[in-house]
Amino acid sequence: MLALGDGVFAIAMTLLVVSLGVPDLAHAGDEHELLDALNDQSAELISFFISFAVIGRYWVAHHQFIRLLRAADYGLIWLTLVYLAFIAFLPYPTALLGEYFENPISVVVYALNVGIVSGIEVLLFRHAQRHDLLERAMPEPVFRWGVAASTVPVAFLLGSVPVAFLSTTLAVVCWFLAVPAGLLLNRVRPPEAADWF
Amino acid sequence: MLALGDGVFAIAMTLLVVSLGVPDLAHAGDEHELLDALNDQSAELISFFISFAVIGRYWVAHHQFIRLLRAADYGLIWLTLVYLAFIAFLPYPTALLGEYFENPISVVVYALNVGIVSGIEVLLFRHAQRHDLLERAMPEPVFRWGVAASTVPVAFLLGSVPVAFLSTTLAVVCWFLAVPAGLLLNRVRPPEAADWF
Amino acid sequence: MLALGDGVFAIAMTLLVVSLGVPDLAHAGDEHELLDALNDQSAELISFFISFAVIGRYWVAHHQFIRLLRAADYGLIWLTLVYLAFIAFLPYPTALLGEYFENPISVVVYALNVGIVSGIEVLLFRHAQRHDLLERAMPEPVFRWGVAASTVPVAFLLGSVPVAFLSTTLAVVCWFLAVPAGLLLNRVRPPEAADWF
Amino acid sequence: MLALGDGVFAIAMTLLVVSLGVPDLAHAGDEHELLDALNDQSAELISFFISFAVIGRYWVAHHQFIRLLRAADYGLIWLTLVYLAFIAFLPYPTALLGEYFENPISVVVYALNVGIVSGIEVLLFRHAQRHDLLERAMPEPVFRWGVAASTVPVAFLLGSVPVAFLSTTLAVVCWFLAVPAGLLLNRVRPPEAADWF
Repeated sequence: MLALGDGVFAIAMTLLVVSLGVPDLAHAGDEHELLDALNDQSAELISFFISFAVIGRYWVAHHQFIRLLRAADYGLIWLTLVYLAFIAFLPYPTALLGEYFENPISVVVYALNVGIVSGIEVLLFRHAQRHDLLERAMPEPVFRWGVAASTVPVAFLLGSVPVAFLSTTLAVVCWFLAVPAGLLLNRVRPPEAADWF
Repeated sequence: MLALGDGVFAIAMTLLVVSLGVPDLAHAGDEHELLDALNDQSAELISFFISFAVIGRYWVAHHQFIRLLRAADYGLIWLTLVYLAFIAFLPYPTALLGEYFENPISVVVYALNVGIVSGIEVLLFRHAQRHDLLERAMPEPVFRWGVAASTVPVAFLLGSVPVAFLSTTLAVVCWFLAVPAGLLLNRVRPPEAADWF
Repeated sequence: MLALGDGVFAIAMTLLVVSLGVPDLAHAGDEHELLDALNDQSAELISFFISFAVIGRYWVAHHQFIRLLRAADYGLIWLTLVYLAFIAFLPYPTALLGEYFENPISVVVYALNVGIVSGIEVLLFRHAQRHDLLERAMPEPVFRWGVAASTVPVAFLLGSVPVAFLSTTLAVVCWFLAVPAGLLLNRVRPPEAADWF
Repeated sequence: MLALGDGVFAIAMTLLVVSLGVPDLAHAGDEHELLDALNDQSAELISFFISFAVIGRYWVAHHQFIRLLRAADYGLIWLTLVYLAFIAFLPYPTALLGEYFENPISVVVYALNVGIVSGIEVLLFRHAQRHDLLERAMPEPVFRWGVAASTVPVAFLLGSVPVAFLSTTLAVVCWFLAVPAGLLLNRVRPPEAADWF
C-alpha cells in the first residue's frame, strides 16, 4: 500500500515538470529573447512549485495517517486508490493553471481537484475510526479535532471558487490562508491529541 | 519482483495523465471557451479515471496473488514481466480511447489489452498451482473457482468486441457488467476458498 | 542502490509508452482509417515490446548480480550509475527505431546502446570479482564462464552493426540469435556455476 | 522519506530522456540525413548525460547524509521536500540547455538550479547538526569541513554565471572544475572525518 502510494506521490511530483515546454526562440543565442520567453512562462514555473508544495503537504499527511493504522480493509484500500487517482491527476490542473492563470475556470478546476483530495482525506480518516482500523482507539474530542483539521483546507478551497470569478490572484491568496488557519486550529488542539498527530 | 511490479503499476497509473494535453484557447481569459474545451476533453478525462480504476483493480489482484506465493521460478518471473509489459502499455489504448471514443477500433484495442492482462493473470495462477509455488497447496474446487473468477473479466471483455461495432457506449457498458458478474460468482465461492482469497 | 535501480528500470520500461503518439485521423469515427493508422505504427508497437523484453532481461540479470554481492564500494556505485544512465537512455533509441525502422543508423544506435549496457554488465562483474565484493569468492572457471555469458550479447549486437547497412531486418534477427547462443552456452556451464547463477 | 526521495531521484533521472524528441526526416531511410539530425541533437544528448551524472552525484550525497541521521523533525522533512522540488525541476533546465546551449541564459538557469540544490544540501547538513538529528554528534572541525565540501560546488556554479556571458562552453568547463577542487579538499580532510563521510 505504502509502496504504491509513495510511487504515485513521487511520480505525480516529478511529472509536473513534463508540462513545462522549452520555449521556441527566433534567435537561439539571443539572451533578451530567452529571458522574455522565461518571463512569459513564470505562471507555469510558479504553478510547478505550488503543486509540488501541495503534493508534498498531502504526502506528509498521508504518511502520518498510514502510521496510525493497525490494519487495512478493502474499503480503505479502494478509498486510498481513489485518493491516489486525484493525486495522479493533479499535473493536469497544474498545467491548466500554468497556461491560463488569469482564467477563473482553471483556478476552479485546480481548487476542486485539491478540495476533492482533502475531502477523501477526511473520509479515509472517518473510515479508519469507524471500522476500528487505528492502532489505538481515538477519544471522541481528538477525532473531532482531526476531522476539523482535515476539513479546513476543503473549506478554503471551496470558498475560493466564487472568489475566482472576481479575481484569480485573490482566489490563490485564499488557498494560502488555509496555512495560518491551520496554525490557529493547532492552538485549540486537545492536549491528548499530541499522541496521535 | 514486488518492487518492480509496484513501480510499473504506479508509473502506468500516473503516466495516464501525460496524454491529457492542455487545450489551446483563442482567448486565454475566456471562461466559456475554456469550459467548452474541457467539455470536449470529457472523453479523455473519463478514460483517465476508467484506466486508473482498471490498473488499480489489477494491482490489488496482483498483490493478493503475490502474497499466496512461497517461491518464484524463472517461468513465473518472465510471465510476470509479460504481464507488466501489457500493464505498462495501457496508457496507449487509454489515450486512443480518449481521442477516438466513438471509433469501434479504439474500444476493441482497449478491450484486447485489458483482456490479455486478465488472460495472463489466469496463466500466472495456473503456473503457480502446477509448479507448486503456492504457500499452501490449493484444493481442486478452490483452484477451479479462482480460475473462473479470473476468467470472467476476459469473457466480458472479449464479448464486448463484436458489440463495439454496433455501439461503442454499449461495449463500455459490457465491461462494467463484469463487476456485478464477479459479485454473483462470489456467492458460489466454496467456503474453504476464504483462506486463499 | 537496489531501490534506485528498480526505480530506473521500472520507469524506463514504462516511459517507452510515452513516445507512442495517438495517430491523427481525418474522420474520428472511421474504422478503416484508424486500423490503417495503427498498422502504420506497427514498427513503433513492436519496438515497445522488444525494448520492454530487453530491459526486462537486464533487470533480471542485474538482480541476480546484486544478490551475489556482499558489499559495494564507490567504484561499483558509480559504475552502476553509468549502467543505469544507459538503461534510462534506452527509450530514445527505441523511439528512433520505431520511427525509422528501415534506417540503418537507428538500428546501429539501438545496438550500440544495448551493447554498452551489456559491456558495463561485464565490467561490473569483473570489478566485483577483483575487489572482492562478492558474497563468496568465485572459482576461476565459473568467473570466466560468467564473463563469457555476459559477453555473448555484446558480440551479437556489435556484429549486427555492419549487417544493418545490408538489411535492418536482418540486423534485428541477429540480436535474437543471442538467445539460442546463450542457451548453447548454458550447455558448457561448469557444474559448480549452479551455485552462483 | 528515503522511499519518496529515491522515487523522485529515479524519476528525475529517467524523465530527462522525455525531452529528447526524435528528429523529423524528409527521407525516412536516408542514413546521412539521420546522422546529421543526430549530430544536431548532440548538445541535447550531452545535456542528458551531464544531468544524469549531476543527479547521480546528489543521490549518492543524499544517501550518505540520510545514513548519518538518527531522527527527522518537521523542519528537516520540509527542507528535504524543497530539495527534492529542485531535483524534480532539473529536467527543465536540462532541456533548455540542450536546446539553447549557446545562450548564456540557459547556462545561468542551469547553474542556478544546481547551485540551489547544493545550497539546500548545506542547509540540511547545518539543520541536522544544530537540532541534534545526527546519529553521533560531529566534532566542530569535521562539521566545518563537511560544510566546506558542500559549499565548493555552489561557489563554482555561481562563479560560472558571469563567465557564461563571455563563453557558455567556458562556463560548463567551470562546473567540471568543481570535481578536482573537491578532490583537493579531500586532501585537507580532518582524519576523524573518515567516520562520517
